[in-house]
Amino acid sequence: MTAVTKTLHVDLGERSYPIYIGAGLLQQAPLLRDHIKGKQVLVVTNATVAPLYLQQVMDSLQGLQAESLVLPDGESYKTLDTVNMIFDRLLELRHNRTTTLIALGGGVIGDMTGFAAASYQRGVDFIQIPTTMLSQVDSSVGGKTGVNHARGKNMIGAFYQPQCVLIDTDSLLTLPARELSAGVAEVIKYGLLGDAEFFAWQEQQIDQLMNLQQEQVVHAIHRSCEMKAEIVAADEREQGCRALLNLGHTFGHAIETEQGYGNWLHGEAVGAGMAMAADLSYRCGWLDTASLERIESLLQRAQLPSWAPADMTAEAFMAHMAVDKKVTDGQLRLVLMKAIGDAIVSSDFDPQLLQQTLQVSRVN
Amino acid sequence: MTAVTKTLHVDLGERSYPIYIGAGLLQQAPLLRDHIKGKQVLVVTNATVAPLYLQQVMDSLQGLQAESLVLPDGESYKTLDTVNMIFDRLLELRHNRTTTLIALGGGVIGDMTGFAAASYQRGVDFIQIPTTMLSQVDSSVGGKTGVNHARGKNMIGAFYQPQCVLIDTDSLLTLPARELSAGVAEVIKYGLLGDAEFFAWQEQQIDQLMNLQQEQVVHAIHRSCEMKAEIVAADEREQGCRALLNLGHTFGHAIETEQGYGNWLHGEAVGAGMAMAADLSYRCGWLDTASLERIESLLQRAQLPSWAPADMTAEAFMAHMAVDKKVTDGQLRLVLMKAIGDAIVSSDFDPQLLQQTLQVSRVN
Repeated sequence: MTAVTKTLHVDLGERSYPIYIGAGLLQQAPLLRDHIKGKQVLVVTNATVAPLYLQQVMDSLQGLQAESLVLPDGESYKTLDTVNMIFDRLLELRHNRTTTLIALGGGVIGDMTGFAAASYQRGVDFIQIPTTMLSQVDSSVGGKTGVNHARGKNMIGAFYQPQCVLIDTDSLLTLPARELSAGVAEVIKYGLLGDAEFFAWQEQQIDQLMNLQQEQVVHAIHRSCEMKAEIVAADEREQGCRALLNLGHTFGHAIETEQGYGNWLHGEAVGAGMAMAADLSYRCGWLDTASLERIESLLQRAQLPSWAPADMTAEAFMAHMAVDKKVTDGQLRLVLMKAIGDAIVSSDFDPQLLQQTLQVSRVN
Repeated sequence: MTAVTKTLHVDLGERSYPIYIGAGLLQQAPLLRDHIKGKQVLVVTNATVAPLYLQQVMDSLQGLQAESLVLPDGESYKTLDTVNMIFDRLLELRHNRTTTLIALGGGVIGDMTGFAAASYQRGVDFIQIPTTMLSQVDSSVGGKTGVNHARGKNMIGAFYQPQCVLIDTDSLLTLPARELSAGVAEVIKYGLLGDAEFFAWQEQQIDQLMNLQQEQVVHAIHRSCEMKAEIVAADEREQGCRALLNLGHTFGHAIETEQGYGNWLHGEAVGAGMAMAADLSYRCGWLDTASLERIESLLQRAQLPSWAPADMTAEAFMAHMAVDKKVTDGQLRLVLMKAIGDAIVSSDFDPQLLQQTLQVSRVN
């Protein structure tokens, strides 16, 4: 095996930070320690990840006042109550504002730990060690942190940047197949929204990627993070082009909310959502039949659902989409595609075409 | 009565905003409306303030989709659970990210509403209408928002700036005398920490100020906010000189925590804390006897306690001060005074002198 390691610098002025991507990085203690300023560290992880990787991380922190907190695993625990458990632990340990929080796990752990870091004493340092492909390509860049509310996903949170992100691709070796697919959904999203060449590369390399060939894995993560970083740098607080990153997400969030968080994986819902966005773009006359078929085919080869649950009605979609963050003054805006690699944010579509998309019953 | 109205511009680049100070401002609807960008507004207030001023504010918002939320009154409700009530209401009303939250009340309402605004959908607009003197001089500038935790005050929160601050000095007419004094404690703090002339002005004008003479009230609030704005502009995220604003607060927070939030008002605890900081500064040989007496005298004329509760031990102080945010890597740093109007942050004091200050039993 060739060891392929890449570093990506996310340029956000004072809040710039590096993303390290490669195999075996968890065993390189200096990478982590160089980004810890004080003596106090709290590693936050969950019951699934802790037995696999916590000891390696704690070993890197020898000599520091390092403690860990193991939370229950699952999107259903992504709540304000769970974040409060992080606060409880920090205060019990008397951590002060020079502390560093380390998020070791997937997106849920990253989002909650990031929000805890943003809010503890009004902001302390944090480091992300994402262990799922979804969190590696999606949560490494953008500074979005937060928790869910019974009435909506990610409704409470903060924009907050880490000191660094450490992506050890070896952690994908223990990832369940469904979660790998869910992560690849986001990789596909980056091709679709802004890089037709990357999409074509994926069509060529999807089997190697799904088999965790090191070169393909590092390239897919690096290019996804790079594209996200460019978009976020141009629009850190989500006023403009950053909305493109929500390709598939408005439909996807509706599916997740309707089905109950955790029954569909986020990436699976986004996969279905991208297929629906493609379908509506096709009905608008923007995407041609060949493109629509290429999109559905790639989703299927990545073992992703390419349509919504059969029993979910158009009414259910509309009810959830009305409370979506992309609604501006009552107007629903969706991310659609003019072509593969050319997404736009638009409210300029015929509502009847949207109804048609929502009513299609194409179970697979 | 001469109508004295002043506007102070807080200069924070993209996050700059105005503070309007004067009598009858709540009746000037355009002042408020000019700072509301969307159609949705949620006014957050408490059960004490609502019967007095909520209707006036709602009248200013006619034609908008304006709703209100009345929370229970008191520092003991300054918790994550209460902030969650704000989230519940916003989601129930389907407020999107163009909503504006208006905080109508004292510091507790301002801190919680500001934190809710910082965190709802990762940040929405908010406007402060502080109705107590403490919140007018203290919370109008600095962007500190947050809630308490059972193990410490203001341990959870965010730095977040409002769109504008509206200070209607008429709201002081309904303020209980104890709360007026508590607010004046912060005014005294500004003189002590950085403006000997302002301190001398207060010695001249304290009776008119306590009697709510309009000219003195507007000047005291304006000068306090102006001084805070200068300090905050130089140090928005509290890395350096901003710590001077904590004059009296390390001792004060220990008193509040020990006594249980709400039994001592925050300003009362700060008053006692400033007397203790002055005492320690005197023991260090920095303040002379005359200055010490001037400080205690002014505190007394403002009806403030000029010492800690008689039954609070040095050990109790030290236990609470150890978890204070001003502790850096185990080193206790205090705001002390070289002279009236010349405060410094220092860990360079003899711990035995601190013990002497904590052991003084000077009940009044």
